[in-house]
Amino acid sequence: MLSVKEALNLILEEGRALPGVKIGLGDARGKVLRKEVISREDSPPFAKSMMDGFGIRYNDYRAGQRIYRCVRVITAGEKSQSEINTDEEIYDYKTVQIMTGAPIPAGVDAVIPIEQTGHDPRISPLDREVLINTEDVRYGQHILQQGGNYVKGHVLVQNGRRIRAQELAALCEAGVTELVVTRELTMAVLATGNELVSAYETPGAGEIRNSNEPMLLAQIKQAHGMPIALGVARDELEEIRVKVQTGLKEDILLLTGGVSAGTLDLVPRVLKEEGVRQVLHKVSLKPGKPIWFGVKEVDGHKTYVFGLPGNPVSSMICFEIFVKPLMKKLSGLEDFQSHPCQAIVKNSYRFRSDRPTYHPVKCFWEHGVLYAEILNWTGSSDLTSTVLANGTGIFEAGEREYHPGEKIEVLMWE
Amino acid sequence: MLSVKEALNLILEEGRALPGVKIGLGDARGKVLRKEVISREDSPPFAKSMMDGFGIRYNDYRAGQRIYRCVRVITAGEKSQSEINTDEEIYDYKTVQIMTGAPIPAGVDAVIPIEQTGHDPRISPLDREVLINTEDVRYGQHILQQGGNYVKGHVLVQNGRRIRAQELAALCEAGVTELVVTRELTMAVLATGNELVSAYETPGAGEIRNSNEPMLLAQIKQAHGMPIALGVARDELEEIRVKVQTGLKEDILLLTGGVSAGTLDLVPRVLKEEGVRQVLHKVSLKPGKPIWFGVKEVDGHKTYVFGLPGNPVSSMICFEIFVKPLMKKLSGLEDFQSHPCQAIVKNSYRFRSDRPTYHPVKCFWEHGVLYAEILNWTGSSDLTSTVLANGTGIFEAGEREYHPGEKIEVLMWE
Repeated sequence: MLSVKEALNLILEEGRALPGVKIGLGDARGKVLRKEVISREDSPPFAKSMMDGFGIRYNDYRAGQRIYRCVRVITAGEKSQSEINTDEEIYDYKTVQIMTGAPIPAGVDAVIPIEQTGHDPRISPLDREVLINTEDVRYGQHILQQGGNYVKGHVLVQNGRRIRAQELAALCEAGVTELVVTRELTMAVLATGNELVSAYETPGAGEIRNSNEPMLLAQIKQAHGMPIALGVARDELEEIRVKVQTGLKEDILLLTGGVSAGTLDLVPRVLKEEGVRQVLHKVSLKPGKPIWFGVKEVDGHKTYVFGLPGNPVSSMICFEIFVKPLMKKLSGLEDFQSHPCQAIVKNSYRFRSDRPTYHPVKCFWEHGVLYAEILNWTGSSDLTSTVLANGTGIFEAGEREYHPGEKIEVLMWE
Repeated sequence: MLSVKEALNLILEEGRALPGVKIGLGDARGKVLRKEVISREDSPPFAKSMMDGFGIRYNDYRAGQRIYRCVRVITAGEKSQSEINTDEEIYDYKTVQIMTGAPIPAGVDAVIPIEQTGHDPRISPLDREVLINTEDVRYGQHILQQGGNYVKGHVLVQNGRRIRAQELAALCEAGVTELVVTRELTMAVLATGNELVSAYETPGAGEIRNSNEPMLLAQIKQAHGMPIALGVARDELEEIRVKVQTGLKEDILLLTGGVSAGTLDLVPRVLKEEGVRQVLHKVSLKPGKPIWFGVKEVDGHKTYVFGLPGNPVSSMICFEIFVKPLMKKLSGLEDFQSHPCQAIVKNSYRFRSDRPTYHPVKCFWEHGVLYAEILNWTGSSDLTSTVLANGTGIFEAGEREYHPGEKIEVLMWE
């Protein structure tokens, strides 16, 4: 049977990033950038003050001058820069009062923070005497030069990065209002099974409420996809076929239930008849062994089909292990692999499994160190431990006792 | 000056969780639960098979019997449980074929996986002979008993937890369709400054594009809040006042710009006149020293007001350090404090600062270990380093060289 790593490699090898589309800045949050953004301007576009204070010539200060006469007040947003840029503005023993963010006039090469000056704020700033109270002034201090953050031609945001608040801010600052990104992945979810009723119904004998579908829809949303609910298909060939045909129009189709070995498992048959090429079936993994994956390609558009096991924890964990990295790769995200972390076991736990196991754990940081509490878990239908969990320990097959202080590998859910 | 810890304590002491509101399951994702959910049923509601296979009496097997006659096929969703539950269904050397998730009939106390049996699938299951090929059968195997996951009265989801995909699934499974949660926090953002133009404009002399407002709106969204854009206010008393009055109707008002020491800093004056009680102003922190925080209380509703510094990196990092934990506390989230992590320095870096500093770093997991690359950073107006970063190193004031392999404390952005 395939290992998790082998299975994931097969899945990712099939994955082809979607083409980029042009969008406006207002739709950019959460999207993955597909064409690096190059600045067309310097940042800042002009030398500016980083403090509220008084701008002086450093040479005057160095020559021992401590009293200056204020000839001007420059505020942020000041438009008359040309006026300031005359040589007469600043000459011997004169100063300008300057606000944070305001342009530095020609001649000024140090800003003294207002707290380090003595002046009488009750009188008009002009012609006021300003006393410098500090003996610690450096050339160029509190001035951010034009292009001090970056110059024209700098890569503002790299290809393959997800646009978060700070990328958005950098793009706004640079006036970049059109971007090439990957559109949202469309992801259909189809739950199968005669035993399923909705959360709003009272199950009859042998029935259970449908939890996989709402869970997968939420997982898709959490992972930046666009969920499309196909509802529940009874275990009947034609009902499954119609819904599968609809789902095959999307980027990814997730089926849950119907891929284990029973006689009512019609899903593999329908998928085959609909031209979905099987890539893998069954992985040496607990929970999630019966997972199925295939691809349908029509006119250059690939639909990736996962048959996820019907037990909710299996579906959920298979989504984390297999579906999420594929979603990231299709989105064009540069870093699409999962990164397991080392955590220190917090509790004693006797573990027994015949397969490599992704076992629910609760990870937490304590004094900067990552710990994992191994949770009690009755198996793939036990959602209660996943409610307490924020990740899984990755355990080898076998039987052993884990002890506090041991290091284990965990996969944290984002 | 207040330390970060002292300031955060003052802010959190003011924070009072909003009252809970009733919502339907469809609106639950991302919300914080405010009343624990108790199960009204056992899970599973009936004993069920965890495998596709054949149900037998364990005592028959233990007595040496390996050949059974199939008397029935039970599928998931089978409604005629009473029929199965007769004692005659399973007696000496008979078996039932059973599907994953199907109810276990009375008398069956072990399920043999289909792969461990010999049978001829081409002939009708009924009256078919089934040979058991394994010598490893345990009493009760592959059967999940009624209530095996949890019994009626179990706490399904605890108070103060955010509802993720798995909580949603657990609630659906249990048929819990109404919940008490905290409504989304409404958060107004007001940028102030004559120097600000929009991302779509070409700045004139001394002007810059407004990046803080879109950044904060995105940060709010990322942190589960509901952003409300008040636009930009010029540095004029009445314009600021009108917008502040609007913002004070929300749960949180974020102002950016206008809280440092310059003469045009009208924001503190307006806030005072509008009845906002100052809790703190200035924190020993880089970037973000000029941060201001106050509270207005009217008829039992508190509005929390942050005056964030005008430089974008200061605004962004103050949001991470101060605003987010308050948002979590107001939401009723049980775990509202940030948890710094230890990371291993990847690169040599010479650091110099007169204040405790939250310095952009790029954290990554390598072979299970958390590393941090300390990024080059020119200061609070330099967004490019935050674009490369996913957290901040927390550095003490002073001057020192960091070396690869050293441990530092980092605050990772979620």
